[in-house]
Amino acid sequence: MKLATLKDGSRDGQLAVVSRDLSQAHYATGIAGTLQRLLDDWNFISPQLEDLYATLNDGKARHAFAFEARQCMAPLPRACQWVDGSAYLNHVALVRKARGAEVPASFYEDPLMYQGGSDDFLGPTDDAVFASTEWGIDFEAEIAVVTGDVDIGTPAEGALESIRLLMLVNDWSLRSLIPGELAKGFGFLQSKPATAFGPVAVTPDELGGAWQGGRVHLALESRWNGQRAGLTDAGPEMNFHFGQLIAHVAKTRRLRAGSIVGSGTVSNQDWSHGVSCIAERRAIETIEHGAPRTDFMQFGDTIRIEMLGRDGLSLFGAIDQRVTALAR
Amino acid sequence: MKLATLKDGSRDGQLAVVSRDLSQAHYATGIAGTLQRLLDDWNFISPQLEDLYATLNDGKARHAFAFEARQCMAPLPRACQWVDGSAYLNHVALVRKARGAEVPASFYEDPLMYQGGSDDFLGPTDDAVFASTEWGIDFEAEIAVVTGDVDIGTPAEGALESIRLLMLVNDWSLRSLIPGELAKGFGFLQSKPATAFGPVAVTPDELGGAWQGGRVHLALESRWNGQRAGLTDAGPEMNFHFGQLIAHVAKTRRLRAGSIVGSGTVSNQDWSHGVSCIAERRAIETIEHGAPRTDFMQFGDTIRIEMLGRDGLSLFGAIDQRVTALAR
Repeated sequence: MKLATLKDGSRDGQLAVVSRDLSQAHYATGIAGTLQRLLDDWNFISPQLEDLYATLNDGKARHAFAFEARQCMAPLPRACQWVDGSAYLNHVALVRKARGAEVPASFYEDPLMYQGGSDDFLGPTDDAVFASTEWGIDFEAEIAVVTGDVDIGTPAEGALESIRLLMLVNDWSLRSLIPGELAKGFGFLQSKPATAFGPVAVTPDELGGAWQGGRVHLALESRWNGQRAGLTDAGPEMNFHFGQLIAHVAKTRRLRAGSIVGSGTVSNQDWSHGVSCIAERRAIETIEHGAPRTDFMQFGDTIRIEMLGRDGLSLFGAIDQRVTALAR
Repeated sequence: MKLATLKDGSRDGQLAVVSRDLSQAHYATGIAGTLQRLLDDWNFISPQLEDLYATLNDGKARHAFAFEARQCMAPLPRACQWVDGSAYLNHVALVRKARGAEVPASFYEDPLMYQGGSDDFLGPTDDAVFASTEWGIDFEAEIAVVTGDVDIGTPAEGALESIRLLMLVNDWSLRSLIPGELAKGFGFLQSKPATAFGPVAVTPDELGGAWQGGRVHLALESRWNGQRAGLTDAGPEMNFHFGQLIAHVAKTRRLRAGSIVGSGTVSNQDWSHGVSCIAERRAIETIEHGAPRTDFMQFGDTIRIEMLGRDGLSLFGAIDQRVTALAR
């Protein structure tokens, strides 16, 4: 099942079911008004939406209309939790190697994760607005899951069963603000502005065999100003699968339905795959040439992030954003 | 105006108006079902609730009933944002002095804040459930504000105007997990379990002259197992006022209505005021005797946190929780 939240002037938007090929949509009116409402009562509501989804895919939904990614908010325009991992340790290793540091051995056993802001997510084609390019504007292409309720102490395998939906993420980062902020010791705040999400959230069964072991075994494409920055494999090099990431959070507290858990920047050891963020390209340039050669993003730059399923169809639709100067 | 969210079996509970003396309550049914709903449309809805509040205080509300803190969820049982400051630098200085470290000069100009989890808040009398006392279970008594919408780049004075409500907070902390987690560089996650909030949220006008310069000039009492741990003054030693804390977050992103911004542990330089968390008492013991003498909390321990207004009435009602072992 594929689900989108369409702009209607409200804070939480209007839930719609979207056809597998992303051509048609149908409001979920009368079943669930918002995606959070569905997540709050998944077992009761989701079968009704699956029925509508089947009807829509068969071309028999009476009030179907053309689906437009531009009409989308983030599937959850605001959420009760957004916690992001750094599960591709190659990304961590590259960035550290560029500054002459090593990855601590513990990082291979204990996931690195941060608590993100979840009050103001961006839709897939919303402008990303910043006051200054001096902040080192960067995209980060990744995958996230949305969970149901998870009890304290749930182990990784049990946590996998709590996964309701998968989403595409652009975890905007302000690279120049990160070192100073992390040095203070309390993690990211100003350096992680509003995060953007792909047009549709999908149930794991939409991935077929590409959803395996809590990982998404598909390629993630990032195009920066129309040029491919990376086509990275999201599967085998994810050091911690999503169940492990959820279980890490659940060690001391419950997760409640609608919690979003991210993978961190998708990254591969084989540099020919390219990158899913500019910081990593700059790290590679530093390792190869002693200094970075690529600047971060400028006002007017665009970033397009997309993942195709094994059937060649766009799985989530595309994130397609423009970097814009804050109007003062 | 004083507002509470009463348990009704739902995730967001039922909004009620509570009389100034906390004796009576009245459901806000027909005006706003939940506190988030009120915050989403504050200017339209709050005058209607103020009318009901006046009627209730006059003893003329037709369907009033006795208010019971035990029936309360957190005023916002889940929120789209919980970001907590460490605005009383005396707390930071004490904890650092105990381990032979100094407070960086920048901490006096740039607030220390972390992004907390907001999917699962505890009500004022809910048990605080932990798997192990080895984790160093500690309370942290503090104050928080709830904001309306705040634009990117809003300055501190403007941010003050976005404050809709104040709340009482117990920011549960797992002290033994903090050093390892902060050493990883990405901030708190497992070391900050579910946060608890006082029974009612109050509009700033309820504080009268005690709400001044973005600070709460009142004493905060913490009683641990019935004995006073501290009666700290929340006002003059708050190095950053709430407008400054909000503006810090707003530097690179909007805050959306219903964002909760905390003060951090209330702390005074005069040790005779006692403490608002055990870590601080242990820091003082370490400075005085070379080692801490007080253990963190044990299963069965209780913590009661309350603040009286200048009229002697309980401003928020009391947080009154018991530490309980996770059932396995």
